[in-house]
Amino acid sequence: MSLITSLQNERVKAAARLRDRRGRDRQGRILIDGARELLRALRAGVRVLDVYWCEELVGSVDAAAVLRELRSGRLDAVASAAGGGSPATDTRLWQVTPAVFEKLAFGERAEGVVGVAEATPLRLDELRLPPLPLVVVVEGVEKPGNLGAILRTADGAGAAAVIACDGETDWHNPNVIRASLGTVFTQPVCSARTPETLDWLRRQGLRIFAARVEGARMYWDVSWREPVAVVLGAESTGLSEHWRGADITPIALPMRGVADSLNVSATAAVLCYEALRQRSG
Amino acid sequence: MSLITSLQNERVKAAARLRDRRGRDRQGRILIDGARELLRALRAGVRVLDVYWCEELVGSVDAAAVLRELRSGRLDAVASAAGGGSPATDTRLWQVTPAVFEKLAFGERAEGVVGVAEATPLRLDELRLPPLPLVVVVEGVEKPGNLGAILRTADGAGAAAVIACDGETDWHNPNVIRASLGTVFTQPVCSARTPETLDWLRRQGLRIFAARVEGARMYWDVSWREPVAVVLGAESTGLSEHWRGADITPIALPMRGVADSLNVSATAAVLCYEALRQRSG
Repeated sequence: MSLITSLQNERVKAAARLRDRRGRDRQGRILIDGARELLRALRAGVRVLDVYWCEELVGSVDAAAVLRELRSGRLDAVASAAGGGSPATDTRLWQVTPAVFEKLAFGERAEGVVGVAEATPLRLDELRLPPLPLVVVVEGVEKPGNLGAILRTADGAGAAAVIACDGETDWHNPNVIRASLGTVFTQPVCSARTPETLDWLRRQGLRIFAARVEGARMYWDVSWREPVAVVLGAESTGLSEHWRGADITPIALPMRGVADSLNVSATAAVLCYEALRQRSG
Repeated sequence: MSLITSLQNERVKAAARLRDRRGRDRQGRILIDGARELLRALRAGVRVLDVYWCEELVGSVDAAAVLRELRSGRLDAVASAAGGGSPATDTRLWQVTPAVFEKLAFGERAEGVVGVAEATPLRLDELRLPPLPLVVVVEGVEKPGNLGAILRTADGAGAAAVIACDGETDWHNPNVIRASLGTVFTQPVCSARTPETLDWLRRQGLRIFAARVEGARMYWDVSWREPVAVVLGAESTGLSEHWRGADITPIALPMRGVADSLNVSATAAVLCYEALRQRSG
């Protein structure tokens, strides 16, 4: 194990560039802040190449667990038991000084560990759906906090996948990873264009519910007991015109106050849990 | 109408200090960014003392509406029709230069209008509940984005009130106001300590549901068709021990994935809309 003390270390400089999308796209790698997020990535079979840790900052139980598991190789068993991908035996551990860590973690509450992993984007045609899937589709949703909350909801409600169809959403923005608590690694996610997504949903035989302020059907009056995709748009612009059609059902939430919509991640939660409720009944 | 050009203008300096809680507490005033938020405050009868506007930045339809209504006095009729408080005839309009506006709006997307209003905190004993109320209680929830989303959900679900019981929550943080889209002005909100809140809920005869990760009852298996308070804690620490007792029902959401909870504002949305669904059925 090495101690990195220099802010000019090439490896550290390359890792710090992963905070920006351009750096991620160029290197094909991502940065994972937070111990719980790293654990979920490792256990989901994400190939974590490097973990930087700072003795002075490692505080949480989870951070200690990351280091212990990586050192002991115990993770292999966990990953295999969970049906995850390749074991993480080739993760390199680098001890760094607080100043170096600060450069990498960039003021994040990162619990003294930060990882660099391979980006492994999933293509739409690689998604495999279970029986009775619930697929969540977002169009134009940009705020990392909302995307992260939607991923947690999809995880909690047992959704089969989350698809971003604006072409811009970057699932590997470090703030999305954090806000998702690492569920971005356990939940199948992918990015595609809207027409391609719509075509794919139709070929999968999913019933499509589009959440619209002016939707004629209340969300609790439709049946979620069949294969369903639920589509959510940005609050400011709503869904694009692609999401109109005879086979697309516009649904709405009742709004009893002065505002005409909830926060998009709140809407996602209400709809995904209505699906779960109906399916559990 | 005056044009303010100086960053050293005393009125401007006092208004800019309202971005900080200390400034708000000292002056007993709040700062409202955003045209829609200002409109909702005005229409809800909030006493808006000053509105600063910048001709070069006023862009949105809502911002133009704020200025038009304030100039024409048309707001009186709106406020009265809505049963709001005092008409806003005494709001002073101040035109400012872009540099002055920037100092007031502090980089916010504020659409060229920002207002200073009287803070009118509501005490618990001033809350009046309608028949069959749904009261939302948050303990230790701090992020403005979450608080704002919870207010929008309370508005949408027709909740009677939102109570923060950690003693610290500042409903008038400008970021809470923005994230709530101004529903913080239309929704009865108040702050109190937990024991005081619990006592008040009991005296109101509300059934108390405490959202807990380990809650034994699923939220859809309890009846929301009676007067109910739903209590939500911070994700990191959960609810304090005050929220245990023979008359408090711990409820949970099913979690089908790897995470043990949703984002707190997503949980609030699922629970409030389950109440609305059951009550509409």
